Amino acid sequence: MGDISATPPLTRTSVQEAHERIKQYIHLTPVLTSTTLSGFASEPQSQDVLKGTEWEGQQPARPKIRFFFKCENYQKIGAFKARGAFHALSRLTEEELSKGVVTHSSGNHAQALALAARTRGVKAYIVMPTISTPSKISGTKGYGAEVIFSGSTSQEREAVTNDVIARTGAIMVPPYDHPNIMLGQGTMALELESQVDDLIHKEPQLSVTGRSKDKNLDAVITPCGGGGMLSGVATALSGTGTLVFGAEPRFEGGNDAERGLAQGERITSVKTLTIADGLRTPVGKIPWTIISDNNKVRGVYSVTEEQIKAAMKLVMERMKVFIEPSAAVAIAVCLYNEDFRKLVEEEAGPEGWNIGVVFSGGNTTLEAISKLFAVPDKVAERAVGVLGRDGKRIAENVPG
Amino acid sequence: MGDISATPPLTRTSVQEAHERIKQYIHLTPVLTSTTLSGFASEPQSQDVLKGTEWEGQQPARPKIRFFFKCENYQKIGAFKARGAFHALSRLTEEELSKGVVTHSSGNHAQALALAARTRGVKAYIVMPTISTPSKISGTKGYGAEVIFSGSTSQEREAVTNDVIARTGAIMVPPYDHPNIMLGQGTMALELESQVDDLIHKEPQLSVTGRSKDKNLDAVITPCGGGGMLSGVATALSGTGTLVFGAEPRFEGGNDAERGLAQGERITSVKTLTIADGLRTPVGKIPWTIISDNNKVRGVYSVTEEQIKAAMKLVMERMKVFIEPSAAVAIAVCLYNEDFRKLVEEEAGPEGWNIGVVFSGGNTTLEAISKLFAVPDKVAERAVGVLGRDGKRIAENVPG
Repeated sequence: MGDISATPPLTRTSVQEAHERIKQYIHLTPVLTSTTLSGFASEPQSQDVLKGTEWEGQQPARPKIRFFFKCENYQKIGAFKARGAFHALSRLTEEELSKGVVTHSSGNHAQALALAARTRGVKAYIVMPTISTPSKISGTKGYGAEVIFSGSTSQEREAVTNDVIARTGAIMVPPYDHPNIMLGQGTMALELESQVDDLIHKEPQLSVTGRSKDKNLDAVITPCGGGGMLSGVATALSGTGTLVFGAEPRFEGGNDAERGLAQGERITSVKTLTIADGLRTPVGKIPWTIISDNNKVRGVYSVTEEQIKAAMKLVMERMKVFIEPSAAVAIAVCLYNEDFRKLVEEEAGPEGWNIGVVFSGGNTTLEAISKLFAVPDKVAERAVGVLGRDGKRIAENVPG
Repeated sequence: MGDISATPPLTRTSVQEAHERIKQYIHLTPVLTSTTLSGFASEPQSQDVLKGTEWEGQQPARPKIRFFFKCENYQKIGAFKARGAFHALSRLTEEELSKGVVTHSSGNHAQALALAARTRGVKAYIVMPTISTPSKISGTKGYGAEVIFSGSTSQEREAVTNDVIARTGAIMVPPYDHPNIMLGQGTMALELESQVDDLIHKEPQLSVTGRSKDKNLDAVITPCGGGGMLSGVATALSGTGTLVFGAEPRFEGGNDAERGLAQGERITSVKTLTIADGLRTPVGKIPWTIISDNNKVRGVYSVTEEQIKAAMKLVMERMKVFIEPSAAVAIAVCLYNEDFRKLVEEEAGPEGWNIGVVFSGGNTTLEAISKLFAVPDKVAERAVGVLGRDGKRIAENVPG
């Protein structure tokens, strides 16, 4: 994808330029609030729920949290990936584009690149494992892309991709490990900033009563898989005073960024079957340069599968917003991770924080949800219970 | 609930008055559009899908439909029922309210009345069958209502309700068969009218290119159970030129309004276990006076369980909007009922219609959805297939 050294620097200004380039092609996705979920997040978890965790016996945190949800599930192709793909193509010359673009992906990036290519009138080759679900294959073909099948190991996918490049001269557009993808994905942070300002201007009670702040958005937390979104958002907000956090699934070591930060070195290989299937990849090399910079990303926190399911259930049933499991990971950290919650309590104090939470996508099916929720999961039930199965809290079962 | 003869007349003006009385208490719910779903509705069904139906062998209809979805799933308590409850209470005197209010319901009306009563500082007694799901019981208690249990037959419920009235002097607030409930529920139509005007003013391409219409909303279709919403909406739109239609589940005779219209007489008893559980009741006596008036309700159409599921799947997966099965019935008629589709084709002609479709509520759980979608349903799969499992149509898998 061109020469990486020729890409714009990883700065807020570059994200602003990226936004100018793509805003005509993408949706300005809505920012939603929820009194109910902000209320849940602002109540301490019960001691019972913390039993058996590393926080057993500790005093539960009492953070004060007001949520502002950036709904990238309403983005084109149903996920934030459209931002990176449109930006990457906007940075290629007509000559580079003339041979087409190629990537290997079975997920949202495949459809994002296919859509961006079709919009630019460019050929897209998508390498997908033969075992991909038929709906994803037909979805990608539906955007006019040529789907080329490969085996499912990364070696097999890369071999087929290299074949395509050799045969067609197409330019590789990777899903996250590239500055132009990161800068494109970071554009959501600029929208979130000004949307939160607008919302609080219209409804001052959404923020802290009686205090005018020069910065309405205290923090943003995004899911972290390959790290393109997290590093892009951190780049966009660098120097603004808004803190940036990442959120990961803990299952089978899916929290590679969190573990990498702890050991001071990027973890390059992960093998997890977490339900947050968009977050199974390890953080890429270039995103890591941002994520490992403590001035840009303040920390990465992880949650269990049960906590992801409990958060997904709350968002769907209470907010009536349809999200995929990966999109529930950031709110799950705010609701259930005591380390994060203690940090908010200590740093925000009684005034609390306005936290921007990214709902990264909504591409799942009712059949997939059925598999997740068919057998009532005791831990998920318990986690939800903590957050309001008793009369008092259910009382706030009011959308919006 | 007071003297029915003293309630306002069933006119558009009364609905406007009702709106003034309740608008401070309810949400102005959003109206959403979807290029994808309007596109699906504007393509003919395949001959294959019509096999085995009463339309087998007929030429599939080719209506042109632009959807405007009134999202009452984002209403307080998650359903339109809040409108009727708030309006009913606004029409009672302080003296009448002093003894409290009572109803029997295990569904959305229970929570709506409980919320409205709490807001007015009034005691609410809710009679629920002992077999009600624990979450509904705790939800209703959560709004501060006193829950009183009864057997599950209508005789048992009414006996217990009469006991409560005798004991406390509470006023009965029925779920649909009362003018004040109908007028309150009809208020959504006034909002829908002006929201569609605003949307088309901002984005003229949402309507018919090159033609300015004095009436942007050609038709509205709402689900029909007890008929409070359908009759209220028809009352609100009476004389405006906007046509009003009803939608019902066909399963086990759940289409009592459609059948009643055919036989020229209201059907007073229905026993169906349709998945559209909000629509299992027969149309009430007072709603029937409106619904059976051909100048007010143009027709009622029904759909199968599989079609309800297919519509629900499209709304959730494509629009990312979380709805309960009852809320999918009106869009299902637009997508799958050939009689309705032929009517639109014939009356609207090539310009098509802007159709307001009510998403009536979003109160379901992921566990309930799991039961519905756990075993892939061949008919639902086929119905969805018609509407876009081939590459070309999946291509439009773009929210918004």
